[in-house]
Amino acid sequence: MKKHNFYAGPSVLPQVVIDETIKAMQDYAGTGISLASISHRSKEFDKTMLDAQNLMKELLNVPEGYSVVFLGGGASLQFAMVPFNLLNKKAVYANTGSWAAAAIKEAKLFGEVVEIKANDYTSLPKNIEVPSDADYFHFTSNNTIFGTQYRRDFDLNIPVVADMSSDILSRKIDVSKYAIIYGGAQKNLAPAGVTFVIIKNDILGKFERKIPSMLKYQTHIDKGSMYNTPPVIPIYAAYQTMLWIKAQGGVEAMEKLAAERANLLYSEIDRNPLFVGTVAKEDRSYMNICFVMAEGYKELEAEFNTFVSQKGMVGLKGHRSVGGFRASTYNALPIESVKLLVEAMQEFEKLKK
Amino acid sequence: MKKHNFYAGPSVLPQVVIDETIKAMQDYAGTGISLASISHRSKEFDKTMLDAQNLMKELLNVPEGYSVVFLGGGASLQFAMVPFNLLNKKAVYANTGSWAAAAIKEAKLFGEVVEIKANDYTSLPKNIEVPSDADYFHFTSNNTIFGTQYRRDFDLNIPVVADMSSDILSRKIDVSKYAIIYGGAQKNLAPAGVTFVIIKNDILGKFERKIPSMLKYQTHIDKGSMYNTPPVIPIYAAYQTMLWIKAQGGVEAMEKLAAERANLLYSEIDRNPLFVGTVAKEDRSYMNICFVMAEGYKELEAEFNTFVSQKGMVGLKGHRSVGGFRASTYNALPIESVKLLVEAMQEFEKLKK
Repeated sequence: MKKHNFYAGPSVLPQVVIDETIKAMQDYAGTGISLASISHRSKEFDKTMLDAQNLMKELLNVPEGYSVVFLGGGASLQFAMVPFNLLNKKAVYANTGSWAAAAIKEAKLFGEVVEIKANDYTSLPKNIEVPSDADYFHFTSNNTIFGTQYRRDFDLNIPVVADMSSDILSRKIDVSKYAIIYGGAQKNLAPAGVTFVIIKNDILGKFERKIPSMLKYQTHIDKGSMYNTPPVIPIYAAYQTMLWIKAQGGVEAMEKLAAERANLLYSEIDRNPLFVGTVAKEDRSYMNICFVMAEGYKELEAEFNTFVSQKGMVGLKGHRSVGGFRASTYNALPIESVKLLVEAMQEFEKLKK
Repeated sequence: MKKHNFYAGPSVLPQVVIDETIKAMQDYAGTGISLASISHRSKEFDKTMLDAQNLMKELLNVPEGYSVVFLGGGASLQFAMVPFNLLNKKAVYANTGSWAAAAIKEAKLFGEVVEIKANDYTSLPKNIEVPSDADYFHFTSNNTIFGTQYRRDFDLNIPVVADMSSDILSRKIDVSKYAIIYGGAQKNLAPAGVTFVIIKNDILGKFERKIPSMLKYQTHIDKGSMYNTPPVIPIYAAYQTMLWIKAQGGVEAMEKLAAERANLLYSEIDRNPLFVGTVAKEDRSYMNICFVMAEGYKELEAEFNTFVSQKGMVGLKGHRSVGGFRASTYNALPIESVKLLVEAMQEFEKLKK
């Protein structure tokens, strides 16, 4: 049975990305050697690394004065690297979900953290006011677990840092408004194992701190992401994903598709009396769509889970901290998968109402 | 033309490992989903992670009281993580090569470092004497760039930490003599992107220091390497490599093969008047065999490089800091590749002498 992959990450990738990565694992760039065994210092991989950095700059319209690096360690390592490099005295963090809270925890090891928080994680704080003496403002653009999303940039008088792990390349952004944009690649970009970081070069080195070489952004900028052996396969796959995005019409096309998928599913959640969305409508994510059984139907949760599983849909179980369901609708998820889910919800309604 | 992969890392892997990884990228464990797209929280990957940890324990005879974790970031990140977690006041480091020196540089950010060094990197310091009040002794078991190797464990009265990036699973070791063994996997184990760490549990938490979560070994031990999204594909490949090692007869068989490959090539280096080894004979590595053109033949270096390239041998150029040639002869390198190199050296001798 064909599977429909709603996992929150690692998650669905375009089939062509998987196919091209497999081809490269058989014979990479005509070298007669597998992508798994090629030296990262070979001229072939050197080109892939450069191509990947340049294509990310092209797709996101990254202005002059910024660097793109691909690192190991995951976004969780960035939670420490950002304050290691930028937090001298005080930083402001929007606390909008589990990952934001995890980033805050690490930042507190390095300095004072001012938290901005809505009442709970089902809506987003809107009026962001920051003290002008803060080193930076950090926010999570899309909250994978709770299903909220800031689909906008911030205009602030201090540097802005964003964790865009789960919505990078799914919508237009104005990179010039950011000091750092980072994210784990395993949602919209690549298999697990690589992290992208877009860094405004002049944000670095503003104060003295002993930073281990691997945790210093400047190290990786200076060496073009080749200070140490980079995660070769995920970087190659990320490059293939970006080629696919470009062929589809770029980030603008991704944004349109994301809205289509999300509107289709949210409309059904709002229409279907068996289900109810979990977050404030104006803050709903286009990437992670969370819903639960409505009052009176709570006991049907496990049954609906089995119902969709039997139709080949996987990864729909909500995160343990929210419960219910979460449909992750990343760039590579075909609209057909969303239609199938909507049909299943309608079918289930007829069976149960 | 069939290629013979002498790259120093990323480097040759058993063909079956590449084939099995490709199969999993087509359909992972019968899930109908690619290994590239499967959730790391799926029960299938959970099993792979556990199997990989257990098989590493089995192959290396890891005693009770130790944990095995698989992390991102590379051995270079371990250069910082080791002192972050273990260096309270003073540590002793054997400075035996470029990677050892890189580890020392990071350790100095955390405390006093006592260096033990031979005259240069062409031989290894033998009489290791350590102050009993040092927190640990760190050494690099195999020096990939210079081609020296400690093929032995140390009996010391302080904890021993070893970077075994380039010789793990190529020889028997007594894990009980170590506090930590770590290494990048991209030589004997897996494609680039994963690092293994074998940790004696009771070595941790002996003093107070604020350590970012991702850099704290205890975090990863507590979560079974699943604190954050692990590098799924390289871990799967590492597991396949370990299955292959087990099927070949385990680490003992690898040790025998390593000695065969190395003796074959060193014999030719010592016999052939055109070539000369670069390190003290008693310290020669079985993994990275470095040699240069002998006096009187220096100008033939580029020509010999072309000569072997034309026979399908790749990755033989020595590291820029040593020059000449380096044949990396890891576990997965077939003896046929070494024989071909030896034949090429003999053929070249006849042409030139």
